[in-house]
Amino acid sequence: MAENVLTKLLNIEYPIIQAPMAGGITTSKLVAAVSNSSGLGMIGAGYMTPLQIREQIREIKQLTSKPFGINLFVPNEFQVTENELISAQQKLNQIRKQLNLQPKEFIDIPAVTNVLNNFIEQVQILIEEKVPICSFTFGIPSKQVIAELKQSNIILIGTATTVREAVEYEKAGMDLVVAQGSEAGGHRGSFINGEQESLIGLMSLIPQVVDVVSIPVIAAGGIMDGRGLRASICLGAKGVQMGTAFLTCVESGAHPVYKEAILHANENDTVLTRSFSGKWARGIKNEFILKMNDYEPSLPEYPIQNTLTQDIRKTSASQNNPAFMSLWSGQSPRLAKSQTVESLIKSVISEAE
Amino acid sequence: MAENVLTKLLNIEYPIIQAPMAGGITTSKLVAAVSNSSGLGMIGAGYMTPLQIREQIREIKQLTSKPFGINLFVPNEFQVTENELISAQQKLNQIRKQLNLQPKEFIDIPAVTNVLNNFIEQVQILIEEKVPICSFTFGIPSKQVIAELKQSNIILIGTATTVREAVEYEKAGMDLVVAQGSEAGGHRGSFINGEQESLIGLMSLIPQVVDVVSIPVIAAGGIMDGRGLRASICLGAKGVQMGTAFLTCVESGAHPVYKEAILHANENDTVLTRSFSGKWARGIKNEFILKMNDYEPSLPEYPIQNTLTQDIRKTSASQNNPAFMSLWSGQSPRLAKSQTVESLIKSVISEAE
Repeated sequence: MAENVLTKLLNIEYPIIQAPMAGGITTSKLVAAVSNSSGLGMIGAGYMTPLQIREQIREIKQLTSKPFGINLFVPNEFQVTENELISAQQKLNQIRKQLNLQPKEFIDIPAVTNVLNNFIEQVQILIEEKVPICSFTFGIPSKQVIAELKQSNIILIGTATTVREAVEYEKAGMDLVVAQGSEAGGHRGSFINGEQESLIGLMSLIPQVVDVVSIPVIAAGGIMDGRGLRASICLGAKGVQMGTAFLTCVESGAHPVYKEAILHANENDTVLTRSFSGKWARGIKNEFILKMNDYEPSLPEYPIQNTLTQDIRKTSASQNNPAFMSLWSGQSPRLAKSQTVESLIKSVISEAE
Repeated sequence: MAENVLTKLLNIEYPIIQAPMAGGITTSKLVAAVSNSSGLGMIGAGYMTPLQIREQIREIKQLTSKPFGINLFVPNEFQVTENELISAQQKLNQIRKQLNLQPKEFIDIPAVTNVLNNFIEQVQILIEEKVPICSFTFGIPSKQVIAELKQSNIILIGTATTVREAVEYEKAGMDLVVAQGSEAGGHRGSFINGEQESLIGLMSLIPQVVDVVSIPVIAAGGIMDGRGLRASICLGAKGVQMGTAFLTCVESGAHPVYKEAILHANENDTVLTRSFSGKWARGIKNEFILKMNDYEPSLPEYPIQNTLTQDIRKTSASQNNPAFMSLWSGQSPRLAKSQTVESLIKSVISEAE
């Protein structure tokens, strides 16, 4: 693979970015292995405290001298009524019963100001720790935050699901933009157009984004091997972001039953659901999704629903039971393999050449 | 573009197939222009009578000596109750009023046996007229029909939306299979897995199909230019089927206001709806779709709903009003141009080389 504007900007050899999957998947070993294999490792820090972020950054620096990046969730305002909370808990209590968990009625829900402050503190940490690259999901940070990051020479990446979202990121001063196709696993990055209207397949999304923005575009969604990398480059992208392909690698922190679920899934086993977190995300259909399906329209928004389902997801994982875990996956699970990061990146590059 | 297994099989120069769009779009001029430009023109014959098919085949033969193909809808059993019909008509009568159309209560609905017989007669015509290529949508024809077509040396193409559907087509003896990505405009070809579970983006669908079937795969959905053709080849397809790109060509029979709607649409203006025909299809959101949205789950199945909405679609078109027409489009309308077929094919090939 020849050097291009993206590899130069990110100071990496191969145009392969490991998607910043939140929730314990992007271990320091995974991030460092990707960077050491000449791609870009990324910490999925959306759910992390500033202290956890600082610790992981320092740990990764012990494992690699190459550049790596971090992803933050841009917080939105949110609200929930007591009635909505009680009704959501009633539905979840049926599932708690199945898992021998105590029923819950109320819960400490995060305060909006705390979520906003947490984001500001996360940003400060990555400036202090001199992380060279930061990507954003769910929105565009304030002008002040962007200015501060730019002053520290941090390369900024936005996540867009439509042409308009990509344009807004470019206007806000991002250096690069990820175009997230409908194939992508995990949370939809949509923040302007509704998530349901923003399910554009990569074959359509990449050329239409590339024709309108001037910053380099990174293709994301369903890309697992050299074929996907080459196809993305043909469509006009300068590199790819791969999630599911790294998730099943031996260095990833995904639960073994989660890895197994992906390794045995078919291309049409994933669905879009907001039942785990309150935001739309793509994952492998399981009992939790099916049980919550009828309630989807009335579920509390993110991050409330995410907080509510935390004990259920954790307990399900501790029981090695994939039925109530969030099994985020893109639409290409048939192409997933259990292998090392080095072997994955080597084969992607050799197939693409 | 080098010759490959697909161009050899179809006896064409370029691996570009014009999607067989039904409903008057694939005029003889369009089909012949595609074949004369070294791609494969296709008649969208799903809604045509055997007599109309014979006439169009003969007309096209006057315009080109190159191979062209035809697409047929494989009929399914269907049923409708009187109550369902009355209730569907009540909803449609509100729209008829807006269009100054007479309200309707009952209607001559097609009999299952007539639909099945029509299909058999369509097949006879293309054997008699020696059309060299036939593709199928909505299912797999009977063993007898396939055997008859094969005996006449007609090349057979299936339309699949999942790996399993592609495998079933291969088992049934098809020579080629179209992999229809979620980006595609018009009707979903799904016939085994539910339409909603079969919305796989092309970046995911192509490599997963290619890895499992041995027959050549044709990529369909959102492909509009040389970038899409090259990307499809990288993913393992041997050629592409393009619909929306040909629909806005000057030779296409699409209504001028329909062409204009596509030429002004954005990538996220299309939705999936079954309100026009009873089968899920992707088209540009308009007043009809929005008005019928709440009733979608209870609408009669195909072809009943298609018959019921016929007067509305026709009248809307005759009034040059796109609000109640079916504006089928893929997810790449920003890439659509008003141009001749020759100019489209030339630019696709020059971009792809």
